[in-house]
Amino acid sequence: MRGISVQQLNWEKYQQDFAALSAIGETEAGMNRLAYTEADQEAHGLLAKMAEEAGFEVKWDGAGNLWITRRGTDDGNPDMPPLLLGSHMDTVPGGGKYDGLLGVMTAFHAMRLLEGMPQRRTVTLIVFRCEESSRFNCATVGSKLLADRLNGEMLKRYVDKDGISLYDEIRKLGGNPDNLFAERNYIKNAFGFIEMHIEQGPVLEERDTDIGIVNSIAAPYRLRITVEGTAAHSGACPMGSRKDALAGAAEVILAVEQLGRAYADKRIVATVGKCDVINEAINIVPGLVELYVDVRGIDKDTVTEVVTKLYEEMGRIAEKRNLHIEPAVLGQETPVKLNDDMAELLVEQCVPNRLTFLHMVSGAGHDTMYMAELTRATMFFVPCLEGISHNKAEAVSDEAVQNGLKLMYSTLLRICNLDPEEEREKEEMHRRFVEAM
Amino acid sequence: MRGISVQQLNWEKYQQDFAALSAIGETEAGMNRLAYTEADQEAHGLLAKMAEEAGFEVKWDGAGNLWITRRGTDDGNPDMPPLLLGSHMDTVPGGGKYDGLLGVMTAFHAMRLLEGMPQRRTVTLIVFRCEESSRFNCATVGSKLLADRLNGEMLKRYVDKDGISLYDEIRKLGGNPDNLFAERNYIKNAFGFIEMHIEQGPVLEERDTDIGIVNSIAAPYRLRITVEGTAAHSGACPMGSRKDALAGAAEVILAVEQLGRAYADKRIVATVGKCDVINEAINIVPGLVELYVDVRGIDKDTVTEVVTKLYEEMGRIAEKRNLHIEPAVLGQETPVKLNDDMAELLVEQCVPNRLTFLHMVSGAGHDTMYMAELTRATMFFVPCLEGISHNKAEAVSDEAVQNGLKLMYSTLLRICNLDPEEEREKEEMHRRFVEAM
Repeated sequence: MRGISVQQLNWEKYQQDFAALSAIGETEAGMNRLAYTEADQEAHGLLAKMAEEAGFEVKWDGAGNLWITRRGTDDGNPDMPPLLLGSHMDTVPGGGKYDGLLGVMTAFHAMRLLEGMPQRRTVTLIVFRCEESSRFNCATVGSKLLADRLNGEMLKRYVDKDGISLYDEIRKLGGNPDNLFAERNYIKNAFGFIEMHIEQGPVLEERDTDIGIVNSIAAPYRLRITVEGTAAHSGACPMGSRKDALAGAAEVILAVEQLGRAYADKRIVATVGKCDVINEAINIVPGLVELYVDVRGIDKDTVTEVVTKLYEEMGRIAEKRNLHIEPAVLGQETPVKLNDDMAELLVEQCVPNRLTFLHMVSGAGHDTMYMAELTRATMFFVPCLEGISHNKAEAVSDEAVQNGLKLMYSTLLRICNLDPEEEREKEEMHRRFVEAM
Repeated sequence: MRGISVQQLNWEKYQQDFAALSAIGETEAGMNRLAYTEADQEAHGLLAKMAEEAGFEVKWDGAGNLWITRRGTDDGNPDMPPLLLGSHMDTVPGGGKYDGLLGVMTAFHAMRLLEGMPQRRTVTLIVFRCEESSRFNCATVGSKLLADRLNGEMLKRYVDKDGISLYDEIRKLGGNPDNLFAERNYIKNAFGFIEMHIEQGPVLEERDTDIGIVNSIAAPYRLRITVEGTAAHSGACPMGSRKDALAGAAEVILAVEQLGRAYADKRIVATVGKCDVINEAINIVPGLVELYVDVRGIDKDTVTEVVTKLYEEMGRIAEKRNLHIEPAVLGQETPVKLNDDMAELLVEQCVPNRLTFLHMVSGAGHDTMYMAELTRATMFFVPCLEGISHNKAEAVSDEAVQNGLKLMYSTLLRICNLDPEEEREKEEMHRRFVEAM
């Protein structure tokens, strides 16, 4: 089997369409295409138009997810369930161009490249809504709704800074988050699901590797830690009389880092991403600080162990400093193991395309986590510059984009064009081989 | 000499007027009487009205400072220069009722208590404008203008969050910050200056002492420290690949505290009052953090030594963590030694009033610092509950208020009612006593 050449990629068309979509919501400070905003709607509209021009079927589901389907010649054949692809188009404020959109455009363009090829299996691309938690403090909304992990009632509780609820935003665009039965069933009966994404971390670049095949997605355990001391005048309160909440918080920050490092070989990462001094002023000894902690791992017990040790550490700091330290659990998600058979199909296509690959963990959450509850799901990464993401400096080399596109296209050809006779023969050979062992 | 009894204080009138003034700008979240705002103007207006009712002369100077004068019978006699009193009425946002206003009302009420007494020396109360830095990021504006430490041109550079400059605010109320020559001269030729204030720290309460007589006012050395690392995804970036600006900042926070503690016996206090994570989010490893540091002492060289050690410490942290740490000096004020003769006059009046006292340092800055550049200035504190200030929980017991009032009134009687014959006799006796030693 031969690999895909750059000449087969229709690269200029890809670049042109990516540029058109990534211009929507672009600002000086980076991308601002927050979920369900005008810019997000515009991007969905433009992609739908491109899909119609390519002759694909287009629809939006009750969550506002965009479904783009290219029917295969064997559509309706129960032995040929559809292959699903997916990613998202919404961004964080001040984000990069590639987070989400690269996966959507790679899947979409690979589907277009099937033009003129014998495509037996139907392929459906799902553009999930509201993958980023920035606007509503709730991530992967579209895929969670599809997986029945959220419902309309729950969406009413998530509001943006202007007080608009997720529920109202979805209703406004004509959606009904409680009516996703048909779509959930379609996914349950699918062949499997593939998401391509930028790594958003430095591993592939550091190891000079083209493709990261994701075995597991680490799940965040999130805490808000309130450190309470006593506010005092910075000049008038002697050092010995202080209950400085920020100095206590500094010890908590270092404890989180220390635990992350101690458990790094068990695939733990631990981060304090937010530190808010309440009523802060240069001449006030801080009386109240809120920290936001994110601990992730691929094994739930290990994450729990780290969090337990953090609690012990906080107890020690509180006692030593005479502070009140109160943790509140904001969320506790379960790490997700992805499907090995689907991953194997990706590995198979790396070889003829001369793509180096490694198996890895995704530290970041993705819609694939929820697709994995419904079907055989896999995911692959391409490297991004210095691992920078959620930042306007996010960058992906043309070569990395082309590598992702080759792998996606190659995999579609493999899964959708397969000759059923040949398949049956191969399966028979495999059966005989196993029996002979 | 007998002390002042509570019966002599006209306590109900005092309480009534204090309540009327402290109600202006009061909110659920504490006092909001920021400098030059409507509430501040209203308070100045009400106090001026009270002063007129008491038969005092009233004027505003070019900075908007309110001058309330009770003429003495020897006014105009070059041997009887006026005694000055002063404090401020503006508050921080969410502040307490006593910071500033207690000193103003104590001085004002003590002046009223002179009614019917033979008052030979003129007394002038100056209500300084904009003592708090909250609105314009510039403290003790009224007294700095009087001391020629600020001028109109400089005021244009200080703007509030709405872009309104200090200069424009003063101009709007009819002031001219460049025309304070007469007032500056009046202060230079005065007998001396006394400010009464709440301690804003825990020392008097901890030592169960009525009065703190301030020898020195510590001056703040202020820094903004920028800690720069690399923002990264909290899930996707392994612990070993991080340049976490917040973890580095945590080490700086602890270094500041450690230095403050190490130099506590040299009267140093060191505080990180603000910690701002730029673009903070729970799922981002912080890339940029700004810390605001306030180091105070009564000896400039000691403060410089502490700051130098902090720089060394930051260098070590930056190198170890591969971060860029950049300090910027925001302000470097000089500690002020107050006048011993004026302090002695206060001590003299503590004794007959049975007030316990101690000599202490003011860690907080006060308008007295700038009066000390023009005349013999002193200052005294009364204790506040748990040292809490700049907070709506700020509280002062009735007894502490009465103690302050007794001391202020007693001191006014001493300085203003003095019999010159008796004074000359006493001085002569003292001279002979010294000669005989």
